[in-house]
Amino acid sequence: MKLKNLVSKRYKETPADCVIASQALMMRGGYIKSVGNGIFTLFPVTKRITAKIENIIRQEMDRIGGQEVLFPVAMPASLWQESGRFDSIGSELLRFKDRSGQDMVLGMTHEEAAVHFARDVADSYTQYPFMIYQIQTKFRDEPRCRGGLIRVREFTMKDAYSFHTSQKDLEDYYQVVYEAYNRIYRRCGVKEVVAVASDSGMMGGKVSHEYMLLTPVGEDTIVLCPECGYRANMEAAPCLLPVPEDRPAAAPLEKVDTPDVKTIEDLCALLKISPTLTCKAVVYQENLTDRYVIAFLRGDLDVNETKLRNAIKAEIHPAEITEESGLNAGFIGPKGLPANVRVVYDLSLKGGEWFATGANEKDKHYTGFNIARDVGEVGYIDIAKAMEGGVCPQCGKKSITLSRGIEVGNIFQLGTKYTQSMNMTFVDADGSLKNPIMGCYGIGVGRLAASVCEAHRDEYGPIWPMSIAPWQVHICSLRAEDPQVAEVSQKLYDDLTAAGIEVLWDDRSVSAGVMFSDADLFGIPLRVVISPKGLKNGTVEIASRDKTMQEKKAPEEACAFVVSAVHEELDRIEREAR
Amino acid sequence: MKLKNLVSKRYKETPADCVIASQALMMRGGYIKSVGNGIFTLFPVTKRITAKIENIIRQEMDRIGGQEVLFPVAMPASLWQESGRFDSIGSELLRFKDRSGQDMVLGMTHEEAAVHFARDVADSYTQYPFMIYQIQTKFRDEPRCRGGLIRVREFTMKDAYSFHTSQKDLEDYYQVVYEAYNRIYRRCGVKEVVAVASDSGMMGGKVSHEYMLLTPVGEDTIVLCPECGYRANMEAAPCLLPVPEDRPAAAPLEKVDTPDVKTIEDLCALLKISPTLTCKAVVYQENLTDRYVIAFLRGDLDVNETKLRNAIKAEIHPAEITEESGLNAGFIGPKGLPANVRVVYDLSLKGGEWFATGANEKDKHYTGFNIARDVGEVGYIDIAKAMEGGVCPQCGKKSITLSRGIEVGNIFQLGTKYTQSMNMTFVDADGSLKNPIMGCYGIGVGRLAASVCEAHRDEYGPIWPMSIAPWQVHICSLRAEDPQVAEVSQKLYDDLTAAGIEVLWDDRSVSAGVMFSDADLFGIPLRVVISPKGLKNGTVEIASRDKTMQEKKAPEEACAFVVSAVHEELDRIEREAR
Repeated sequence: MKLKNLVSKRYKETPADCVIASQALMMRGGYIKSVGNGIFTLFPVTKRITAKIENIIRQEMDRIGGQEVLFPVAMPASLWQESGRFDSIGSELLRFKDRSGQDMVLGMTHEEAAVHFARDVADSYTQYPFMIYQIQTKFRDEPRCRGGLIRVREFTMKDAYSFHTSQKDLEDYYQVVYEAYNRIYRRCGVKEVVAVASDSGMMGGKVSHEYMLLTPVGEDTIVLCPECGYRANMEAAPCLLPVPEDRPAAAPLEKVDTPDVKTIEDLCALLKISPTLTCKAVVYQENLTDRYVIAFLRGDLDVNETKLRNAIKAEIHPAEITEESGLNAGFIGPKGLPANVRVVYDLSLKGGEWFATGANEKDKHYTGFNIARDVGEVGYIDIAKAMEGGVCPQCGKKSITLSRGIEVGNIFQLGTKYTQSMNMTFVDADGSLKNPIMGCYGIGVGRLAASVCEAHRDEYGPIWPMSIAPWQVHICSLRAEDPQVAEVSQKLYDDLTAAGIEVLWDDRSVSAGVMFSDADLFGIPLRVVISPKGLKNGTVEIASRDKTMQEKKAPEEACAFVVSAVHEELDRIEREAR
Repeated sequence: MKLKNLVSKRYKETPADCVIASQALMMRGGYIKSVGNGIFTLFPVTKRITAKIENIIRQEMDRIGGQEVLFPVAMPASLWQESGRFDSIGSELLRFKDRSGQDMVLGMTHEEAAVHFARDVADSYTQYPFMIYQIQTKFRDEPRCRGGLIRVREFTMKDAYSFHTSQKDLEDYYQVVYEAYNRIYRRCGVKEVVAVASDSGMMGGKVSHEYMLLTPVGEDTIVLCPECGYRANMEAAPCLLPVPEDRPAAAPLEKVDTPDVKTIEDLCALLKISPTLTCKAVVYQENLTDRYVIAFLRGDLDVNETKLRNAIKAEIHPAEITEESGLNAGFIGPKGLPANVRVVYDLSLKGGEWFATGANEKDKHYTGFNIARDVGEVGYIDIAKAMEGGVCPQCGKKSITLSRGIEVGNIFQLGTKYTQSMNMTFVDADGSLKNPIMGCYGIGVGRLAASVCEAHRDEYGPIWPMSIAPWQVHICSLRAEDPQVAEVSQKLYDDLTAAGIEVLWDDRSVSAGVMFSDADLFGIPLRVVISPKGLKNGTVEIASRDKTMQEKKAPEEACAFVVSAVHEELDRIEREAR
């Protein structure tokens, strides 16, 4: 295709609200156009990329026995009432009424639709296992859209659902999907994606993994152990602490004056102690009842709200501390709390000899506070965020490091959460009626495209991997009005096209500077520059977008060279994905 | 693929609410599953069909220079306010508020999104013409869903938008699309689809065509002239009447008693005249003002509401005639009406010497009513439905026939309705600023699949054309536990698959009756039956689903025979589509 016929647009300026590099490049390069908050139109160049990604996903799903279906975007609320999620999910689930006043939702995921479909088609164990998937538009009413296609409200997603007669069968298949996902990312050219253990959140179920592109601009924190390869999402990683080396002896309880001490930092400065010797209170409220929930943990740690939610089995939000609450903000401690608050102690406090903590009185703290002695025996639960230098839960070394990532896919062992609530059953070999065991598996197509751009780019534009590049070869004809340039360019374009190569041909009358900076924004992996100067020397210039290759070739050799370079690169990606 | 591994289901009974044959077959055959009113999940068998249809559409759009994009399903209402359609479209446009209270809509068509996108990318005449298209989910809150995938609320649609610098350029391209559409239907195996002139309705613009599958169960009435090939949708066809042979002489005006006469039939019976000698009143109200609109037309004709709407440039609904209205239902005529009603006279009344008509008094009619004489000169407008035996507007013969059809696509010359209201401009060659001229072009993918089924079926199931069939060959292995049957079947399956043929293989332990009736419901164009009895005679049986071919072949000849039969049929369809 000729660039001048392509519906496209490039911008000199980066829009002001771009927060990450790939977003800036995709806005400047005319990949996406904002239609509303977190809602985009994809330009033809981007649709070419996502179509290739979808094709790779489809091939890998089919390869592991997946069967493509299509579920609706808009669904009756009754389906989501069956599973209970119509009430349990917050306002990210878009609810509306149709013209007849019926409650409806826009699908943000399709477990309900999958069970509604599958419960009709598989009533005998002989029909299991099976996996169905779709590639379909989803809507999720995100409060914080971000990073272009990274966090949006409307997106195209591949979602797959598998059904099994036993946990063992699910686990075996889960491993098969795990590997198919690894192939998908590698075939899309992003080896940088790793699987990490994750929390299952609103999906239900126990075992789950997220596929993370490791990048400093990621929204998720990942807990890594370079010693043993342990990897988990922050929400799923236990916080194991090294035994402190200078453990203090027990001390008597004393109430001390701490005027104007509002934070742990203030308190440590006043008392000249380390934050590891303090017991910090973080206050939440349950969403349904507004009841206060106080999480106590060691002063140097932060609460992992997902773990806390899972521990208390309730949705929570940061508290608003009123005068009637009986709580003294800044001075809250375990002793002397109002009766009706819910208290959770983090594991980090277990076995501590003493802590400085609030005395539940204005301008007063305790020192020498010992939980067992001063409030009695309590249970301790892991609710803190894992920390740099923490203990690896897998190998036991003090080797935990934290890293950032973008989630580009996830897989869940769901269990029977949906088949039970929605009454899907099958007759097992022994004649008994059971609920099938489910897995579910998602990949956001647009986010994956944006993540590839984030992982493969320079300051001038994306560097698309050959397997998903919008075109494979970009011909730049400098001075296309020159008859020899025109002739050589046309012949190369025709020959490459005839050889099945996808070519974008720029023969506009623009300066070399504009032509090359536009080419950088297109990010096509191979570039052929045809110019009067080169032709005078009997050559055209062939270079890779990532600057690892630059060759001069005679015009008559160019086609064969480029064709084999394209195939070699495609083959390399496929080989490394195996 | 083995049938026993396919996620599928067939039903013995036809659901009670099926109104057309294809719907019944697609429900019984497990093609679609209802999720809600007009909302379906597509089974894998159906997704295979729609994927092939989408592929054909995509090829034809690309062939005429289309560039694929992706617009959002959910859009801010502000876009639709720009074009004015947020207010002008009724409740079939699904409106909702997002979590931040913003008004949003679900796209039922994407003119607004297309202009929003295109107005950024083409500000000079040199960038025209271009066409962009998408294949995307649409939602239209239909009050009357019907016929399975024929009339639904959520559907996958290909919608395309072209932009031009002149009406001539649009008209030239319109012709190109017109022919691409013909190719699409023929390549999908439905030669029965014809283009008919249509009314542009809410889309705006003047010239438009609908592609209609002619079938008695269609929802649309099509006006055809077998003499000259004229074809139009009822909504777009002029109603031209033959000059009556027994035209009566003028008569004096007389008021007559017509007690209990409520209808034209009653009146004709009482007066012993033909309905062609009556002037009938049909009463509507304007949606915005509730003002009465009275359409007068010859008693044997019906009002075409679309023509009436277009003529008075207002949305209307059938009237509720109240006591305060001053109207005497059943006795309404042109003379003596209340002052504030709006009156429209149909062309059929023009030049009539006299009519019987209401006297605007209870139990009274006029005879000998002459419009020019008794109410003065009025304008006459064509607002009646074309009728069987009417005059063809193209060749002038009294040859009009009416037929029924299902609309499976449409193309519109939109003009500048959207580019003007949404302020899309370009600088023309002469330096002047102009609004581009648009065309738009739609095809519903699911409806097309259902229409193919409606056109190609027998009482036992669909007969899918080779080009869009879910599989190309269906192997039925009767007694697959027989070692010879198993061996021959496996080899044929392997050989066909290796030759690139798509095969569904049924090796279940079921009776021949069940196997064949299931195969009929799958509707795969070629069937190979492998049985112990056949093998004893040294043959397998190869038959086409449409019963035009049945052959016995030696097992070792079967593969080559089937491969060439598949390719011949695919070639035939492609050849005839050219």
